[in-house]
Amino acid sequence: MEGFNFSTELSVRFAETDAQGIAHNATYLVWYEVARIAYLHRFREGYKSLQADGYEALTIESHVRYLKPVFFDDRLHVHARVVDVRGARFRYEYVLTRDDEIVADGWTAHAVVDRETLRPTRLPEWLAEAVAAAES
Amino acid sequence: MEGFNFSTELSVRFAETDAQGIAHNATYLVWYEVARIAYLHRFREGYKSLQADGYEALTIESHVRYLKPVFFDDRLHVHARVVDVRGARFRYEYVLTRDDEIVADGWTAHAVVDRETLRPTRLPEWLAEAVAAAES
Amino acid sequence: MEGFNFSTELSVRFAETDAQGIAHNATYLVWYEVARIAYLHRFREGYKSLQADGYEALTIESHVRYLKPVFFDDRLHVHARVVDVRGARFRYEYVLTRDDEIVADGWTAHAVVDRETLRPTRLPEWLAEAVAAAES
Amino acid sequence: MEGFNFSTELSVRFAETDAQGIAHNATYLVWYEVARIAYLHRFREGYKSLQADGYEALTIESHVRYLKPVFFDDRLHVHARVVDVRGARFRYEYVLTRDDEIVADGWTAHAVVDRETLRPTRLPEWLAEAVAAAES
Repeated sequence: MEGFNFSTELSVRFAETDAQGIAHNATYLVWYEVARIAYLHRFREGYKSLQADGYEALTIESHVRYLKPVFFDDRLHVHARVVDVRGARFRYEYVLTRDDEIVADGWTAHAVVDRETLRPTRLPEWLAEAVAAAES
Repeated sequence: MEGFNFSTELSVRFAETDAQGIAHNATYLVWYEVARIAYLHRFREGYKSLQADGYEALTIESHVRYLKPVFFDDRLHVHARVVDVRGARFRYEYVLTRDDEIVADGWTAHAVVDRETLRPTRLPEWLAEAVAAAES
Repeated sequence: MEGFNFSTELSVRFAETDAQGIAHNATYLVWYEVARIAYLHRFREGYKSLQADGYEALTIESHVRYLKPVFFDDRLHVHARVVDVRGARFRYEYVLTRDDEIVADGWTAHAVVDRETLRPTRLPEWLAEAVAAAES
Repeated sequence: MEGFNFSTELSVRFAETDAQGIAHNATYLVWYEVARIAYLHRFREGYKSLQADGYEALTIESHVRYLKPVFFDDRLHVHARVVDVRGARFRYEYVLTRDDEIVADGWTAHAVVDRETLRPTRLPEWLAEAVAAAES
């Protein structure tokens, strides 16, 4: 996917479908999260390292466009990239593909907080640098 | 909540929390859906009537702003209204409150489709009229 | 339901259905949990009091029998009772009804642990007594 | 795992954890299902073939023993085998491991039904034979 250096794969679980016979709309946010975790796994130990360093990343906004219905057992690629890193804030953008077809897209906004106080705090330097390198 | 004629109540389930100790971000889309179903319950038998008439409403876009963390067992009000009914399309807007505090808001866009063909079709007259009356 | 002094009500959410058109089998464990929380709500502030006192109750075993399919928007009663309170251990038994029909039953086993150490610890006296009174 | 010829791998998703900081008890039934789907994938196109042939497999009973807490991002192996194939009925048994440690086990019972009538029907011959070969 042009403009994306990272993607992860998953199959639609039966539990993720609903009585319309398609994947439930809330599930896409879970897939976006799966992609974020896989994205970060490339740097140190990923999200766990972030937590070990005393950080937590809260989701503060989410947006999904459901372009094509997605079905049980469909093999999906979740393309993800980090954009707009500014102090404590950053965003992820996503494109979801099935074979060569875009089936959904969207973005989520996040705030890095101190794990104890839950107060906003700058993205740790090692992660900001790793992300900048990954996205360049 | 000013501007909203409808709300429904729910308590945050333990299963809806995550290891950050707060309600998981995907759950809000489930709560929005719970509110849509409750909203429609006031008209005939609600969504089931829509299905019985051969319609299905697909979610084609969703947006959530997470303003305050929400915790296990919190009692929430989901305020919902229908806006922008145009042919096969309509949107819901939501405000989520805990006591007098707004903890989240958002909207979802929907397309009414024929249950068999999944082709877009106008909102049935009885529902368009019921919604117009409810929102006036 | 004979033998049960407590029940709580819920409606099957659309998100809880799957592509078989029925409620997904994992959802029943969520409903059982909803019933446990409602059950405890009658005593002090329920599970939150338990947590405030430094306890957590872990689920160590679960069993569900799915007797009749359950559908979107079905109104269900979850009958629940506590049995076999012994030291740190206790069990819940459940019967799920729709109108007068039993649609599922099951049980879960739990261990009370210290919230910090996660080591087993006796059920607090106030709760053991409240449960004994509720079940007598 | 002795006695098991099949296993599949998965990582605990953040959405699958709860405010106890561990994977939620209902999630295990989703993992068991993921394992069933992966198990069947080895035969024709798996569960989709079963559906295409006009069958559906209902879950009629489930049992889980939670032996060790499981955490976000843990890498798990779900070992699964089919036992007790009799007419329309069969069971799966599961052992869940993390590294060399057993963290959970359990079983589910299923009934094969005709997709249209939902009446019990014998497991199709091709699948019964494939399973018998896989488990021998």
